Amino acid sequence: MTYCVGLLLDEGLVMLADTRTNAGVDYISTYSKLTVWEQPGERVIALMTAGNLSVSQNVVTMLNEGLPNGGGELVTMSSVPSMTEAARLVGRAIREVRRLDAPALNEAGIDFEVSFVLGGQIAGRTLRMFLFYSAGNFIEAGPDSPYFQVGELKYGKPILDRVVNVGTSLQEGAKCAMISMDSTIRSNISVGLPLDMLIYRRDALKIEVRSHIPADDAYFKMISEGWSAGLREAFQKIPDPVWS
Amino acid sequence: MTYCVGLLLDEGLVMLADTRTNAGVDYISTYSKLTVWEQPGERVIALMTAGNLSVSQNVVTMLNEGLPNGGGELVTMSSVPSMTEAARLVGRAIREVRRLDAPALNEAGIDFEVSFVLGGQIAGRTLRMFLFYSAGNFIEAGPDSPYFQVGELKYGKPILDRVVNVGTSLQEGAKCAMISMDSTIRSNISVGLPLDMLIYRRDALKIEVRSHIPADDAYFKMISEGWSAGLREAFQKIPDPVWS
Repeated sequence: MTYCVGLLLDEGLVMLADTRTNAGVDYISTYSKLTVWEQPGERVIALMTAGNLSVSQNVVTMLNEGLPNGGGELVTMSSVPSMTEAARLVGRAIREVRRLDAPALNEAGIDFEVSFVLGGQIAGRTLRMFLFYSAGNFIEAGPDSPYFQVGELKYGKPILDRVVNVGTSLQEGAKCAMISMDSTIRSNISVGLPLDMLIYRRDALKIEVRSHIPADDAYFKMISEGWSAGLREAFQKIPDPVWS
Repeated sequence: MTYCVGLLLDEGLVMLADTRTNAGVDYISTYSKLTVWEQPGERVIALMTAGNLSVSQNVVTMLNEGLPNGGGELVTMSSVPSMTEAARLVGRAIREVRRLDAPALNEAGIDFEVSFVLGGQIAGRTLRMFLFYSAGNFIEAGPDSPYFQVGELKYGKPILDRVVNVGTSLQEGAKCAMISMDSTIRSNISVGLPLDMLIYRRDALKIEVRSHIPADDAYFKMISEGWSAGLREAFQKIPDPVWS
């Protein structure tokens, strides 16, 4: 399983992904689910993936190697001229991998199932974030819906719904993403540390933070314990019910 | 959709169920999902249901009308001699409804999907709680796993995992169940008030509280607002991350 969350805020972009991959509960391994294309001053684009690992790796490979445009040239994530084109490129790559792999996967009784969050900015353009479904179709985040999740998303949704809005700062956004991740990790053993995080400040055109958060990370541990203590305290503060 | 949660605590039993039923998002109605059999001084048994409403109603009907035992007599939920037999009766009723309805449902492309939580006590016996799956098989709650959920269960699980243990009081258990319900209602519009709650004190052999919590219930509203405020306060107390 996987949990990834992306926040598109006034200040910029927060992306946080776990790294646990499993083929059954008896085969668990660690893969990065966050891929970043950065050309400082020109573009920062980040992609997070959930679902079948072979499918998502193939999509990323195609984004690196390129897909032909109408004029016979290859377009890659490093050469697309806008985030709209970047989103279309991801959609095309999903559909191409589906064309190549879905029949054999389906024969083996495996669904073609994958989802992505793409965020980023290209010089002179707007910071944008998109969510992709298995059919290669996508939707865009906006001020009313400033976050996207993929993978095991329900455990970590309540805190996002209560805390995050488009005016949330990058630091608070990162903190909230980590609490959302912690809630998920506690309830689903197939989501786990280490984590990959990216923070991008709007219009900076370079990465502000790219962090690999190991299993023994002190800040994440403090968040995890602090959040548990905070929840228990909030619980105790609410008066017990009185039966009439 | 549905959310029901049952807690089996040292002090007794807490059961809380929502009442929203939907056939698509454009047909939403209200049905009780909590059925209680009470003979004060002799037995208190409660059943909560999730899944296909026609299936769960048919199961409840069979539990009222009875299923034949080996000796040609009908056994009902009001006559079973023990909670073990009550659990077997529920399992048999699920299988009987499956036998009658599953072929036609499957032909119509509808899964036979249903789950139940059964809790209660019969005079001279132990208070017990069971969880049932669509095949009529069941598991029992114990000191290490003192709660069962059915329906839309993920949003409301983190708070149960952090707060509830077998030593939790009935009042705190009821409060926690309501917070768990509130988290679910906030994130899934197909779960909704009014709620049905039952509180049973171990060995009392009569219901302590049976409450219908309407949409405008003042205590539930206070819980909902207090929990939101408490979460935001807990969030603010955790220091922001500092990038090196």
